[in-house]
Amino acid sequence: MHAPRDLPVIAADVLTRIRARRPRVHAVTNSVAQNFSANILLAAGAIPSMTTDPDEIGEFVASADALLVNLGTLDAERRRAIEAALTAARDRVPWVLDPVFVDRSAPRASFAASLAARQPRAIRLNAAEFSALAGDTPSVPALERFARERKSVIGLTGDRDVVADGARSVTIANGDPLMAKVTAMGCAASAVVAACHAVEADAWCATTAGLIVVGVAGELAAKHAQGPGTFAAAILDALHALDQRAIVARARITP
Amino acid sequence: MHAPRDLPVIAADVLTRIRARRPRVHAVTNSVAQNFSANILLAAGAIPSMTTDPDEIGEFVASADALLVNLGTLDAERRRAIEAALTAARDRVPWVLDPVFVDRSAPRASFAASLAARQPRAIRLNAAEFSALAGDTPSVPALERFARERKSVIGLTGDRDVVADGARSVTIANGDPLMAKVTAMGCAASAVVAACHAVEADAWCATTAGLIVVGVAGELAAKHAQGPGTFAAAILDALHALDQRAIVARARITP
Amino acid sequence: MHAPRDLPVIAADVLTRIRARRPRVHAVTNSVAQNFSANILLAAGAIPSMTTDPDEIGEFVASADALLVNLGTLDAERRRAIEAALTAARDRVPWVLDPVFVDRSAPRASFAASLAARQPRAIRLNAAEFSALAGDTPSVPALERFARERKSVIGLTGDRDVVADGARSVTIANGDPLMAKVTAMGCAASAVVAACHAVEADAWCATTAGLIVVGVAGELAAKHAQGPGTFAAAILDALHALDQRAIVARARITP
Repeated sequence: MHAPRDLPVIAADVLTRIRARRPRVHAVTNSVAQNFSANILLAAGAIPSMTTDPDEIGEFVASADALLVNLGTLDAERRRAIEAALTAARDRVPWVLDPVFVDRSAPRASFAASLAARQPRAIRLNAAEFSALAGDTPSVPALERFARERKSVIGLTGDRDVVADGARSVTIANGDPLMAKVTAMGCAASAVVAACHAVEADAWCATTAGLIVVGVAGELAAKHAQGPGTFAAAILDALHALDQRAIVARARITP
Repeated sequence: MHAPRDLPVIAADVLTRIRARRPRVHAVTNSVAQNFSANILLAAGAIPSMTTDPDEIGEFVASADALLVNLGTLDAERRRAIEAALTAARDRVPWVLDPVFVDRSAPRASFAASLAARQPRAIRLNAAEFSALAGDTPSVPALERFARERKSVIGLTGDRDVVADGARSVTIANGDPLMAKVTAMGCAASAVVAACHAVEADAWCATTAGLIVVGVAGELAAKHAQGPGTFAAAILDALHALDQRAIVARARITP
Repeated sequence: MHAPRDLPVIAADVLTRIRARRPRVHAVTNSVAQNFSANILLAAGAIPSMTTDPDEIGEFVASADALLVNLGTLDAERRRAIEAALTAARDRVPWVLDPVFVDRSAPRASFAASLAARQPRAIRLNAAEFSALAGDTPSVPALERFARERKSVIGLTGDRDVVADGARSVTIANGDPLMAKVTAMGCAASAVVAACHAVEADAWCATTAGLIVVGVAGELAAKHAQGPGTFAAAILDALHALDQRAIVARARITP
């Protein structure tokens, strides 16, 4: 079993594998996040596809290497698409859940709970979303309990990120405050996490790798940004250029 | 009652209040504009939400601080969403109407007229859209008459912006020609105007403040842009960094 | 009949005409591509409109100067919209087909085939999409055969672009590898091609002109980009600033 100190090297290796294998990630994601998420997947070395048509999505997902289910701008079509996508994914295509804004809408929270019960490999969310989904405050023990019960890795993002699978947990202190000033940054991080699951079977490592890679890219991007507009472009540049050495040198991991 | 010469200071103060209170603005806006509008709201200091699902939007709007109703890429779902949003907003949540492209579609013009009759705090539009909505050429007297009759502030944007509430009118000569070369710039300006209505009860001042802030940010952005692509990023940077002094020094207001 | 060596001058002239006439291009395009496609149309000098509402689109298309039908994120609404758009376009409004990802979905491929049978002026696609649509490997003779049979110009894009109308074919060796790292770049190229069809009646010249202009803009953009994020902004800047001399000097055309 991997220890937290191994994670920077694993993250660097996971990114190398993404670039070598070019996994296709099918992302059911919200209309605000689609363009930026597709661009961040391309910058990471993956191939995005994004249809939300219930009649087509099964075929797209069946041939994909990973699936992201993001609940932003949820509507009737997206609900049907998600059902069709999960049917096509079965146990073969790893999938990640991003329960956007479940703290804002009771029907969305209830739908998210039903999806969480279907054991996504990972759930990426923020503190408010965790509270709404788990009915609990987002402490490390609460994350570990939720992860253990639901058999999913929990990736909580914020000033610091925490990734827990019930047996292991780790804190990641990378990133930059400008990340909170670009819309869909969390959604895009979830897309990168999904790409990591396409090439790494250990779900805790894959989730951690995705958040390290995005956090380090964010730090590097901040050096070239004059504000949130140039930052959004700079993080794509930084992720595209990110090398193993920078990941290992910059990852700030604590158990 | 505020005079035009007070407006730059008011605009600076409104932006300070947005940054302090971080109002959530629910934007029913077109799919072309969603990402840029969310980013401009974040850059201004507000929080965007954007769902257009009729089943969810009521809950989102009821807890929002302002509402934007933008008619771009209007479809059956968006029509139902707008109805649900206005029901949830009632008299409590201030709302702004942006009747995009009503000059291009008769059914959209008719829908826009029915919305204008429900007294939005402000209507932000361009000259062609005003002509289609008001059935009148967009002169200052025509704007004042329309504003008085409809009990809404009219914010007409173009080379110069005019804001009229029937009793007062003001011309704003800020902005940059590159603003017309970035899609959804008007939609994004409407989103900022909505954020201003969340923190300023005087609808004429709120509308003017929004257009001054966006216009000054556009001027500052133009200094860092090599064309429309870098300008779109630069205006987000400029708005994020905009300080009170720059607003007061640069606002070009005439009664 | 124009020879390949005339094409750079024709491309420069077509761009000049777009800037002078400002054609409106109605683009039925996927939700991932809408924003970038609208911005690239503006940067080229055209005016975008993008509604996909079946009840409105007829009126938008009837008054447009060109139509793009892009099959990305196809859904029931977009199918109905495309039908209504083509009915409104008739023989009057030139239209371009972009059969995105027809290699990934059997129902989409079948829909694309039915659209290709309705003689779009041009079909812009990549090698995998050509194979799925034509049931043939994408060689120059295969392109010429398909173009002749279907009475449409075929614009195949990739490392090199090939444009064939059955009688003539040309290879364009412009562009930059970063173009493949920005989502919707092909969709945006199709939008520019549609704008060219608005001002140039020779469909082979119009298609070639669009791909030359986008390819040269991409090369110029690469000089100012640090990666795919800044490249996406830089290509809009480059297209907006592109002059006739640069097009003629840089176009790399072989028969």
